[in-house]
Amino acid sequence: MRAGPSQEEIRRQNLGALLRYVHLHGPTSRAELTTALGLNRSTIGALTADLAAVGLVGEDGSRETGRAGRPSLVVRPRSDRVYAYALSIEVDRLRAARVGLGGRILDERTAERPRGTLAAEAVGPLTAFVKELHQAVPAGSVCAGSGVAVCGLVRRDDGMVRLGPTMGWVDEPLGTALAEALGDDRGVLVGNVSDVCALAEHARGAAVGCDNVIYLYGDVGVGAGIITGGRRMTGHGGYGGEVGHMVVHPGPGGRPCLCGSRGCWETEIGEHALVRAAGRADTVGREAVLAVVDAADRGDSMAQSAIRQIGDWLGFGVANLVNIFNPETVVFGGTLRDVYLAAAAHVRSRLNSTALPACREHVRLRTPKLGDDAQLIGAAELAFEQLLADPLDVTAG
Amino acid sequence: MRAGPSQEEIRRQNLGALLRYVHLHGPTSRAELTTALGLNRSTIGALTADLAAVGLVGEDGSRETGRAGRPSLVVRPRSDRVYAYALSIEVDRLRAARVGLGGRILDERTAERPRGTLAAEAVGPLTAFVKELHQAVPAGSVCAGSGVAVCGLVRRDDGMVRLGPTMGWVDEPLGTALAEALGDDRGVLVGNVSDVCALAEHARGAAVGCDNVIYLYGDVGVGAGIITGGRRMTGHGGYGGEVGHMVVHPGPGGRPCLCGSRGCWETEIGEHALVRAAGRADTVGREAVLAVVDAADRGDSMAQSAIRQIGDWLGFGVANLVNIFNPETVVFGGTLRDVYLAAAAHVRSRLNSTALPACREHVRLRTPKLGDDAQLIGAAELAFEQLLADPLDVTAG
Repeated sequence: MRAGPSQEEIRRQNLGALLRYVHLHGPTSRAELTTALGLNRSTIGALTADLAAVGLVGEDGSRETGRAGRPSLVVRPRSDRVYAYALSIEVDRLRAARVGLGGRILDERTAERPRGTLAAEAVGPLTAFVKELHQAVPAGSVCAGSGVAVCGLVRRDDGMVRLGPTMGWVDEPLGTALAEALGDDRGVLVGNVSDVCALAEHARGAAVGCDNVIYLYGDVGVGAGIITGGRRMTGHGGYGGEVGHMVVHPGPGGRPCLCGSRGCWETEIGEHALVRAAGRADTVGREAVLAVVDAADRGDSMAQSAIRQIGDWLGFGVANLVNIFNPETVVFGGTLRDVYLAAAAHVRSRLNSTALPACREHVRLRTPKLGDDAQLIGAAELAFEQLLADPLDVTAG
Repeated sequence: MRAGPSQEEIRRQNLGALLRYVHLHGPTSRAELTTALGLNRSTIGALTADLAAVGLVGEDGSRETGRAGRPSLVVRPRSDRVYAYALSIEVDRLRAARVGLGGRILDERTAERPRGTLAAEAVGPLTAFVKELHQAVPAGSVCAGSGVAVCGLVRRDDGMVRLGPTMGWVDEPLGTALAEALGDDRGVLVGNVSDVCALAEHARGAAVGCDNVIYLYGDVGVGAGIITGGRRMTGHGGYGGEVGHMVVHPGPGGRPCLCGSRGCWETEIGEHALVRAAGRADTVGREAVLAVVDAADRGDSMAQSAIRQIGDWLGFGVANLVNIFNPETVVFGGTLRDVYLAAAAHVRSRLNSTALPACREHVRLRTPKLGDDAQLIGAAELAFEQLLADPLDVTAG
């Protein structure tokens, strides 16, 4: 009875599984791979040889396994040779990096970005960065593709940024513009910043091993990258996770939001809300947020009151999300990391008083492990995803 | 190179796939199955023979295929012979049914349920119903198991109802109590009512073919069954979807909720909110909701104002969920069906003014196709799921 996947499909799946394992877990002995992947020793050997032949993995001499028998060879991702370009368009800066397989940042460039500039204006500097980075690439390297993180609503099909409220963007064809500028006919994968940070922290950060995760990213705006049942939640068109536009303050008391609505969560917990509550509306950016946190630390009562107020609203919205998603981990990223650290007691207190006990009892509140690298590592993950799905196809291309 | 699933595993997967196909799509010709499952004609024949031998499917004479060549035999689920018991504990009634493979309700019992009675008090009447239903089962039938739908937070691992706010339940071991009373050592699968209704409408109702669905179920309380990326979202412990306890009305204006918090969405759109706004707080249940809708139809201005007010809050919360999930379909079930039909313009208007255009542009607002059968069909799906995962194992047991 013929049915199911062919030998060739099975081989491709297994090649992808082995490569994914060392990409996520780093150098791994053949013995460990045998156990982790449920394949026998000779299969692991054959798969490793195939991946090594195209330069995706290397094998080190032996390493003690702590068990009887032959020492086992160690398989490691060729981070030096296999890479993706990772770009990040943030509210105040542009970044580009070359990220090696295994999630190692090999090289990086940063420039300030004036607020209010359009997507098209980011394409030039980012392309120049990639050309610079490219000059340092060793001969015989393999490029898995390019990914870019951006604050905005990204159409999954083509990387069109439909709306970037904090950027003032409407319908910016970022994916196609970057692909054209870079001359990459594989396209450039565009991801919302919270989505790619969630991907990065889930792969190798604060949410490793968690199947239900909310990664909150905040600066001027607020969004969430959400993982349910171990998979990234995208929604129908790719726009899921716009938790910053959950209205939490209806009625005349709610402030106008950049999205056109009123009383959105980001109007209560975003950068502007904090600096305004602290009486410092003349400054902007992460420095402004850190200045409020610092002033509160030093006893400034207005700053302390601002931290309490924002912390309470932060806990309020998290309680809603905990009731809706029943996550095991919530990660506070961007400037929400700093706000959370300063106001953790208020956040937890509001969460406990508002969320259903069953929904919140096992939830862990966390700060990111990867810090500001998450955008770049996550953007690279978008590109590596294609390589991991079919390792030999990408290297042949 | 040995790897991947064994022949036996592939056969089991294919048996499950064929059975699932006719379970969801009804009688299907062998020719259509060949195309739909991507298997060849002789494999479909062999799989059908295996399933027919244990009485899970039957084959009808021939049906015209509209194509040249031999007419194709039609494979149909043995709805008369393969069934699950489906139970439903609702705010005002208890129901039990025998549901045939393919989702056909074969037999059904209903009793009123006084509000305020505990889970333990439902076990006796439901068990009696099942015994009654069992007497009509033809000899040689196959029982796939039992499922029960309940308004409350259900722990996935063991069917413990951690909280049923509208029932006044705390930590009721419903799954184990029912399994013991029914003498079913396979256990009884317990599902939240909105989750099982979502399952039913996704399988054979208003959300067929949709990968991103929110099914809102309302009576006194409000919850959602959520499907993201084609799969049911459960959350970490099974408690995801408690959208009725998203706080939408913070501050002193928010009403106390049965969950202990204030200003929860269900305090603004549940049955109590509607009848109170219409000045009819002396009545309860679906009849009370229908009476308000009817009065509004007949020109009662207080009832009309109540419908507008509740419709506005309904649209408000749906807008939040649309921003968070970017669903393609939202289904209004329970008494929210009646409220939505009476207030559709207000719901849509609030949704359009509040949700982000990219998130809402393709969303369809729908009423259930299965009506009150959804609880029973969905509860049966919980039990059929085991059969579909491994058809021969269940019939052998």
